Amino acid sequence: MENKVQPAEGKLGILIPGLGAVATTLIAGVVAVNKGISQPIGSLTQMGNIRLGKRTENRYPKIKDFVPLADFQDIVFGGWDVYSDNVYDAAVHASVLDKSLLDAVRPELEAIVPMTAAFDKAYAKNLSGEHVKTGTRLELAQQVEEDIKNFKEQHGLSRIVVLWCGSTEVYFEESDIHQSVEQFEAALSADDKLISPSMIYAYAALKLGYPFVNGAPNLTVDMPAMVELSKRNQAPIAGKDFKTGQTLMKTILAPGLAARSLGIKGWFSTNILGNRDGLVLDDPDNFRTKEVSKLSVLDDILQPELNPELYGDIYHKVRINYYPPHGDNKESWDNIDIFGWLGYQMQIKINFLCRDSILAAPVALDLALFSDLAKRAGMSGIQEWLSFYLKSPQSAPGLRPEHDIFKQLMKLQNTLRHMMGEDLITHLGLDYYQDLVESL
Amino acid sequence: MENKVQPAEGKLGILIPGLGAVATTLIAGVVAVNKGISQPIGSLTQMGNIRLGKRTENRYPKIKDFVPLADFQDIVFGGWDVYSDNVYDAAVHASVLDKSLLDAVRPELEAIVPMTAAFDKAYAKNLSGEHVKTGTRLELAQQVEEDIKNFKEQHGLSRIVVLWCGSTEVYFEESDIHQSVEQFEAALSADDKLISPSMIYAYAALKLGYPFVNGAPNLTVDMPAMVELSKRNQAPIAGKDFKTGQTLMKTILAPGLAARSLGIKGWFSTNILGNRDGLVLDDPDNFRTKEVSKLSVLDDILQPELNPELYGDIYHKVRINYYPPHGDNKESWDNIDIFGWLGYQMQIKINFLCRDSILAAPVALDLALFSDLAKRAGMSGIQEWLSFYLKSPQSAPGLRPEHDIFKQLMKLQNTLRHMMGEDLITHLGLDYYQDLVESL
Amino acid sequence: MENKVQPAEGKLGILIPGLGAVATTLIAGVVAVNKGISQPIGSLTQMGNIRLGKRTENRYPKIKDFVPLADFQDIVFGGWDVYSDNVYDAAVHASVLDKSLLDAVRPELEAIVPMTAAFDKAYAKNLSGEHVKTGTRLELAQQVEEDIKNFKEQHGLSRIVVLWCGSTEVYFEESDIHQSVEQFEAALSADDKLISPSMIYAYAALKLGYPFVNGAPNLTVDMPAMVELSKRNQAPIAGKDFKTGQTLMKTILAPGLAARSLGIKGWFSTNILGNRDGLVLDDPDNFRTKEVSKLSVLDDILQPELNPELYGDIYHKVRINYYPPHGDNKESWDNIDIFGWLGYQMQIKINFLCRDSILAAPVALDLALFSDLAKRAGMSGIQEWLSFYLKSPQSAPGLRPEHDIFKQLMKLQNTLRHMMGEDLITHLGLDYYQDLVESL
Amino acid sequence: MENKVQPAEGKLGILIPGLGAVATTLIAGVVAVNKGISQPIGSLTQMGNIRLGKRTENRYPKIKDFVPLADFQDIVFGGWDVYSDNVYDAAVHASVLDKSLLDAVRPELEAIVPMTAAFDKAYAKNLSGEHVKTGTRLELAQQVEEDIKNFKEQHGLSRIVVLWCGSTEVYFEESDIHQSVEQFEAALSADDKLISPSMIYAYAALKLGYPFVNGAPNLTVDMPAMVELSKRNQAPIAGKDFKTGQTLMKTILAPGLAARSLGIKGWFSTNILGNRDGLVLDDPDNFRTKEVSKLSVLDDILQPELNPELYGDIYHKVRINYYPPHGDNKESWDNIDIFGWLGYQMQIKINFLCRDSILAAPVALDLALFSDLAKRAGMSGIQEWLSFYLKSPQSAPGLRPEHDIFKQLMKLQNTLRHMMGEDLITHLGLDYYQDLVESL
Repeated sequence: MENKVQPAEGKLGILIPGLGAVATTLIAGVVAVNKGISQPIGSLTQMGNIRLGKRTENRYPKIKDFVPLADFQDIVFGGWDVYSDNVYDAAVHASVLDKSLLDAVRPELEAIVPMTAAFDKAYAKNLSGEHVKTGTRLELAQQVEEDIKNFKEQHGLSRIVVLWCGSTEVYFEESDIHQSVEQFEAALSADDKLISPSMIYAYAALKLGYPFVNGAPNLTVDMPAMVELSKRNQAPIAGKDFKTGQTLMKTILAPGLAARSLGIKGWFSTNILGNRDGLVLDDPDNFRTKEVSKLSVLDDILQPELNPELYGDIYHKVRINYYPPHGDNKESWDNIDIFGWLGYQMQIKINFLCRDSILAAPVALDLALFSDLAKRAGMSGIQEWLSFYLKSPQSAPGLRPEHDIFKQLMKLQNTLRHMMGEDLITHLGLDYYQDLVESL
Repeated sequence: MENKVQPAEGKLGILIPGLGAVATTLIAGVVAVNKGISQPIGSLTQMGNIRLGKRTENRYPKIKDFVPLADFQDIVFGGWDVYSDNVYDAAVHASVLDKSLLDAVRPELEAIVPMTAAFDKAYAKNLSGEHVKTGTRLELAQQVEEDIKNFKEQHGLSRIVVLWCGSTEVYFEESDIHQSVEQFEAALSADDKLISPSMIYAYAALKLGYPFVNGAPNLTVDMPAMVELSKRNQAPIAGKDFKTGQTLMKTILAPGLAARSLGIKGWFSTNILGNRDGLVLDDPDNFRTKEVSKLSVLDDILQPELNPELYGDIYHKVRINYYPPHGDNKESWDNIDIFGWLGYQMQIKINFLCRDSILAAPVALDLALFSDLAKRAGMSGIQEWLSFYLKSPQSAPGLRPEHDIFKQLMKLQNTLRHMMGEDLITHLGLDYYQDLVESL
Repeated sequence: MENKVQPAEGKLGILIPGLGAVATTLIAGVVAVNKGISQPIGSLTQMGNIRLGKRTENRYPKIKDFVPLADFQDIVFGGWDVYSDNVYDAAVHASVLDKSLLDAVRPELEAIVPMTAAFDKAYAKNLSGEHVKTGTRLELAQQVEEDIKNFKEQHGLSRIVVLWCGSTEVYFEESDIHQSVEQFEAALSADDKLISPSMIYAYAALKLGYPFVNGAPNLTVDMPAMVELSKRNQAPIAGKDFKTGQTLMKTILAPGLAARSLGIKGWFSTNILGNRDGLVLDDPDNFRTKEVSKLSVLDDILQPELNPELYGDIYHKVRINYYPPHGDNKESWDNIDIFGWLGYQMQIKINFLCRDSILAAPVALDLALFSDLAKRAGMSGIQEWLSFYLKSPQSAPGLRPEHDIFKQLMKLQNTLRHMMGEDLITHLGLDYYQDLVESL
Repeated sequence: MENKVQPAEGKLGILIPGLGAVATTLIAGVVAVNKGISQPIGSLTQMGNIRLGKRTENRYPKIKDFVPLADFQDIVFGGWDVYSDNVYDAAVHASVLDKSLLDAVRPELEAIVPMTAAFDKAYAKNLSGEHVKTGTRLELAQQVEEDIKNFKEQHGLSRIVVLWCGSTEVYFEESDIHQSVEQFEAALSADDKLISPSMIYAYAALKLGYPFVNGAPNLTVDMPAMVELSKRNQAPIAGKDFKTGQTLMKTILAPGLAARSLGIKGWFSTNILGNRDGLVLDDPDNFRTKEVSKLSVLDDILQPELNPELYGDIYHKVRINYYPPHGDNKESWDNIDIFGWLGYQMQIKINFLCRDSILAAPVALDLALFSDLAKRAGMSGIQEWLSFYLKSPQSAPGLRPEHDIFKQLMKLQNTLRHMMGEDLITHLGLDYYQDLVESL
């Protein structure tokens, strides 16, 4: 790679299908930070630092000062939605941020008005909307491409990232039409129902050579056709489903238990939430998509085939319950039945009073900024180093996805170090002690 | 190092000051495993595996099959205690393991009878015992040395590890007499009260060139004099206070929150337990020692000086409450006040219904086995790679201790790989994708 | 009533359809208590006392010393089941009680062998069993009547109570055939599918003039036909579904919140359990029966029509999840969103690590003993004073059932006082102060 | 009593020593309700209703429509404080209510300026204040009396209640000087240090014949001298320490467990809070006063002397931790170790995310309004029927205080019924069924 990352010159457009709770929280936040009235907490790109060199060197720059990321002042937001509300109205309706904060950024938010959406009610039965495009799937894709090109020209942008913040679509598995670009394009022409709305956006973005980020557990780019297109057009992709809340906690805690060879007999996870996401997931078909995504994380971390005595018989259950009194304040409760020395049992209960969109917004931001960085670094196809942010990261054929958040972090950090020509870190550190031995 | 680790030939003696709940649980467990009636769950050395080479190589041997550790059949236990109960009686009294399990290993446990202890009531006011040595501190140290030599000869052992499983001593800080071997030995001769009982055992072990492991938060070997002795006699040491329960959870969770740049406003940790450890810690002076150990872990992980907006104002409080109804079933409750995007607050509550000795026993075991391995690998002085197991690991002067359990694990695993001549792992893994790119 | 309660002379037979976890825990417990090796904790009839007269009189006899209940030594157990296991084997399989306790009462338990059950798989799809009667519903009812008569004669009993401890049946609502004894008997003759197995047992018991207790949320006796039969034959009934675990907690807590006029916005209740009950309830049709029973309790306690500002908009959701790792150790988690002064919101979380059968067994016992008492006191029809024990108590037409456990307790205690000619208690107690005023 | 309650004519002054979080929340709330912008949730006098007559009569008036209480529009607030902040400034500083709500009632709150306080730093070491009276205790009492008289005249009030909302004073027990009015007055003249500031206010109020309510666990009126004065001057008193949060939950839950004869082995209660109350209680001497109050409630409810097998060996521990991140948002965590049938153990965990002042304000209000009612009903001395609101209610000599909140509620409701000439309620209700029997 030899540190040939192109600088982040000009403006970056972040185009978002789905201007709901997450997207409006993200946009309002970036505006508020630009105005100096708030801070981008929870964003590794903005707040995090990275150790370089040996511990004794004491070099810990901010990540944004280490790698060339798009500056907040250079970000321009746009998007599509099935409702015609501008971002201010949508944010008020989402009830995530305080009215007083939203009012402080009202003009900027009101100026962002959604384009009509590519929508198919069959993929989200609990939603409806009138602010939609019409036409065959091929025509919809062409309209989205036009939208992107027009937006770029209109705002004088140098780069684009497309960021799916729409709903979870109903569950279905990949089939023939998803196996190659050729097959996919044939299906597009045939207006095939196995092409979901999110795929239309992804196709348009990748075709134009722009990175595509998928915040939901939908299939979307997780198929050979899109991987092929992504490589061909040097348009990075990374996987799907923002890792927040309960799954975030799970991929923090499970590696810790596995590190200590503590056995797990059962893991019961339940959630209560009352936002639009909760409403959509109240439909069993949509929940199935989310469930598959949420259930997958433990197996890779625990490797039951290597540790059958510890993890061979784990009962893992995930539930999501629509509970309007909580609104966007998603709450999770986990019960974990573990066993230790000689098989003696113990229990861990975790109650996370979180806020769905507050956790998701900085993840969406970081994925957009790092995808743009990857593009400028000449990286194409799957970006496994962005697994850190995703419930269902993609990985090369033959590799199981990595869900351990600490290995993911190591991978992300060493990728950045590698990009910039710094030494990789292994945490071996024996030399600190050999030097000392010699000096005595 | 060049893979010159000496093999684990002959028998290993594990000599334990303090044959209470942890020690008897450890001993009973090793006997039970040897009899094939139980499994050493929670022990990384026995149950854990380690990845070698690339992910595509699929090499994940058990650690005990990768590095030459003492075999369970070659371990001989002994120890000292202020009570004269044999290990079976002490285990029954500790009420950790089921009567039926203890009865299955009764003869082996009854055969282990404690030697008289070096004890000073000033260091553990809530304890008393009649089964103690008499003499000046120098005489006590000489008696302990004799005990060790006799035990080795009597059981035909080839190697020894001394493993402190005694109580937490009252809090005090290091002073002049702890600065060098010379000063320490002078103080020993002067019967100086600033030499605590645990130091007497540690001094005897290191003087004989045997590794010393400290399961309690006492000063013991955490001072220049002992580090000097440890290096001089090639007798590994590692730090202090078995990392179990609440602090284990804290060093799992805090790195996860920090990884995501989530801010922390407060962390309240309370514990209820009813075993002898709880009784000793009910004395404020002894609790102080434990409190210092437990409070220290967050600062290193969060690095507030680098992240003042996130961690500059954290309020961290730790409480331990003696609560007899729970016995050894220690239970912790944590409330963590975090904040994310734009400063919005969230809460995490963790309720860990754990078992103190069940978590501590495999940690004690692994530290003993790895310390013996380090000795055979020619490693002297502080073994920072064993930080993984300790609430208060020692590190080289000028280095802050590492508390992030995942960096500790990385350090431990890469040390083992390094020891055995395997490639270190960085989790970069870009080559998986470059190969693929080329193959297309 | 004039204190004309007949004494508890002779033996009492308790005949149980469904010799599963609850029934075997009950039977083993009564035998263990009779042998002096355990205590009937959780049973108000055995352990509870009752205040009589003024507080200054200091009269608090045990309930069993105050009203004439059947003595433990005079109880004879029998029952029916779809499996042919004797009570010892069934208890071992249920995994509620320790093996060592069961072995201490093994001969007594092995001697109790179930009679063949009246069963219909349509009412419990997740169950199957070969140990069943054959015939039309009318024939089944006649066979059960014969079973009861034979059992009574065989054991020389003076009285009988029939106690349903079988599974929850699928949900259905009452129809024409449940409106009168005449219609019910016609349906029985017609082998009508709307007569469920539990109704067959209830009909047989009431027809013979014996009390019938219903531990499950099935319709069973909660219909005009059975109320009519119950009155006609002086055979007490009380309602359905043992009140244990989460609902017990709910009817304790909700009255407390209502007492203080604290508002409730939402109440989310989830359960995890892994016993046979959990398996049956994993079928949505059976869960529906339980859900209706569990959801009903809040309305009566909170009276939203009288307190629309406080309880008019409560969102109440109940979930049960089959989770095998917990076995009979049912665990509930509740989140309650309340609001107080000026509408400010607060939250209560309750995590109850309970044991299903341990809580249910003494409830089953008390209902059997008090139903027998009611019969001897000449009370027929619905016994509202036994609401205390039931999730879905029955009440007179036009009266809403009372779910507040403290009003239920008051009703129970004042009924006992009334039965025995003691003053009712109102807790007014002004006279304590008037006397004092005068005496000054 | 014969329903001779005098009507609530004219204005009622509520004079409050301690204009901190609770008092300002109360005052702001009453003003907000009067302006129609909020509701007095949590106040039984304002929101609660009471059943009258038989259930079939369907009579459930609001309590405020049933008994003659002071109208909100007729309440005038005043008070004393060691800080000179007006009520608006104090409320802003207390950070309980939203700024927007406080601004809506700002003029009314700013108009209430505290009088100088009778203060003694020896009773609250963690507090300091300059806005204090000077003089001997006798002089301070005379000044407070003058304050009350002046306030009454200045605002044209017909009645007064004095309501202690100040801090918890250090722990001490009653001595000779607290045994009679005569001894107390002699001590006052002698400026005896055993007279605490709260006693000075209480003495002044009772001497003038005005009810005194004590929101803190201080001795204050809980002594023979004050009871004597209270009776002599027909000035009602009731006990001490507003029952909110954890203790409220405890006196709801414990009666429920006792009702079912479930045993209790241990009850561990911890609290975290960060308001001024938390700061004062961080001093062990002040905490001792609160601890005694909080620990007392279980014994009366459980009556261990009557139920030694169930409650004879309970380990009850209460902790309060100062934790600034939570401010007034007090949070409690309870672990309750219970046992049921045959001694099998279960656990209940309760996590109450409450708001200290939000719970306390309506309790303070109701006690003030009911004390005024009692005065008008001619009731003097201890008002045991107000136990419902207090952690440490007073009761007649020889009677143990009643802590079961449901018996307390019954006592309160039947007292109101008795006052107004309505039938007392016993919940017997057999007649509902006798009528039915006859009608068949």
